[in-house]
Amino acid sequence: MDRNIMINWINDGTISIPARLIKDYKKLKLNESEVMLLIHVHSFLQQGISFPTPEVLANRMSHSETDCSQMLQSLMKRGFLELQEGKDETMFSETFSLSPLWDKLISIACQQEVVKDEETKEADEK
Amino acid sequence: MDRNIMINWINDGTISIPARLIKDYKKLKLNESEVMLLIHVHSFLQQGISFPTPEVLANRMSHSETDCSQMLQSLMKRGFLELQEGKDETMFSETFSLSPLWDKLISIACQQEVVKDEETKEADEK
Amino acid sequence: MDRNIMINWINDGTISIPARLIKDYKKLKLNESEVMLLIHVHSFLQQGISFPTPEVLANRMSHSETDCSQMLQSLMKRGFLELQEGKDETMFSETFSLSPLWDKLISIACQQEVVKDEETKEADEK
Amino acid sequence: MDRNIMINWINDGTISIPARLIKDYKKLKLNESEVMLLIHVHSFLQQGISFPTPEVLANRMSHSETDCSQMLQSLMKRGFLELQEGKDETMFSETFSLSPLWDKLISIACQQEVVKDEETKEADEK
Repeated sequence: MDRNIMINWINDGTISIPARLIKDYKKLKLNESEVMLLIHVHSFLQQGISFPTPEVLANRMSHSETDCSQMLQSLMKRGFLELQEGKDETMFSETFSLSPLWDKLISIACQQEVVKDEETKEADEK
Repeated sequence: MDRNIMINWINDGTISIPARLIKDYKKLKLNESEVMLLIHVHSFLQQGISFPTPEVLANRMSHSETDCSQMLQSLMKRGFLELQEGKDETMFSETFSLSPLWDKLISIACQQEVVKDEETKEADEK
Repeated sequence: MDRNIMINWINDGTISIPARLIKDYKKLKLNESEVMLLIHVHSFLQQGISFPTPEVLANRMSHSETDCSQMLQSLMKRGFLELQEGKDETMFSETFSLSPLWDKLISIACQQEVVKDEETKEADEK
Repeated sequence: MDRNIMINWINDGTISIPARLIKDYKKLKLNESEVMLLIHVHSFLQQGISFPTPEVLANRMSHSETDCSQMLQSLMKRGFLELQEGKDETMFSETFSLSPLWDKLISIACQQEVVKDEETKEADEK
């Protein structure tokens, strides 16, 4: 095996995903196809590609372009994904933002914290 | 919002996935449920949990325990996942290994390298 | 080159560090040796090793065991690192926690947010 | 605390570093300032900034611009860092590459593998 293949692999790097997304997506009522689509968007954003098209997404997924387009629509409607107007120096552009997804995950983390606090209190009162 | 929630989030950390898995799983004929199951196994391994049961996996996925069990079987048969006999000091234990998955991804990377080389050669000869 | 070397490399994985630590450690008055020591502690914690000794740290660093021990003391005194009493089922154990470091980085992020908000307000008032 | 600060933190993301760099930089005779400088370069490359200047690096480090410039020179001379001529559509540009660093780390991994193999052989012969 050529050593360059290994160097290329390292240069390609890794995609980092908040552990809480992996742990809690089910609680957000996302299925595996939807969470993978969000991971693809996240990975494109990390590479500086801010608006992957349904065609680009379908190239990497086991779903058709039409399916990807419908999933994007559904994820935006349900508040997991947002389109933001970006302004490059000279022209307007659209950018996906995952901020709504992180916001929902934070909400789950907050609820869990409250539950834990109450349990501690109850245990203390006994 | 409590600052502890944010500190907990940071301590929970991130899951790092080789970029090539995200890019190339379709070429390996994995669908989104299967690649997510492999990502769950990877994330458990990173936490030191070497043998997540179908029940544990089903708790995080939109699939039943039976489905998860069948997917694990299928992934092992198709050579993406392996069960290794580990030996803790005093007792034998079973450990999932993703080495076969990485091996398949490396094979894809090697083929792409060969194709690129041939294209370069052809271009040079012209 | 043996393909196993590459598979081992992938299984060894990556260390994920919050981007803000890399960007802002200078503002926290940490030097490179100190931030690297914190990164070593972080990497041991990720592997489930909760109390790396000065000896273990010195094996990876260009500093002596005594230096590492003094740096750990200094980092604890200055509030970047904490020793917590953990309780394994049967015995007490000590665990390093980086929560104070994350807390300091969050404080910096909050200050930057305030500055940005004020700039926006001023710009709006003009 | 404002929830936006936390969302910004998540969007800022993490820097992923091959675990072997953290484990083995001492064996490469790199000190903490040098390895942190390489990590800064790595983090800029991940963000798409291919040629951070000594000034930009000094802004994040506890070293002066002159120091950073000399460290860059030294790292290039000792074969850890490379300047590559890139070609953007219309103009030539210079890009740092960490491929020589990964190459050195792979060499260490190969040597360790050989040592392990010989130990196994010797054990088998007994």
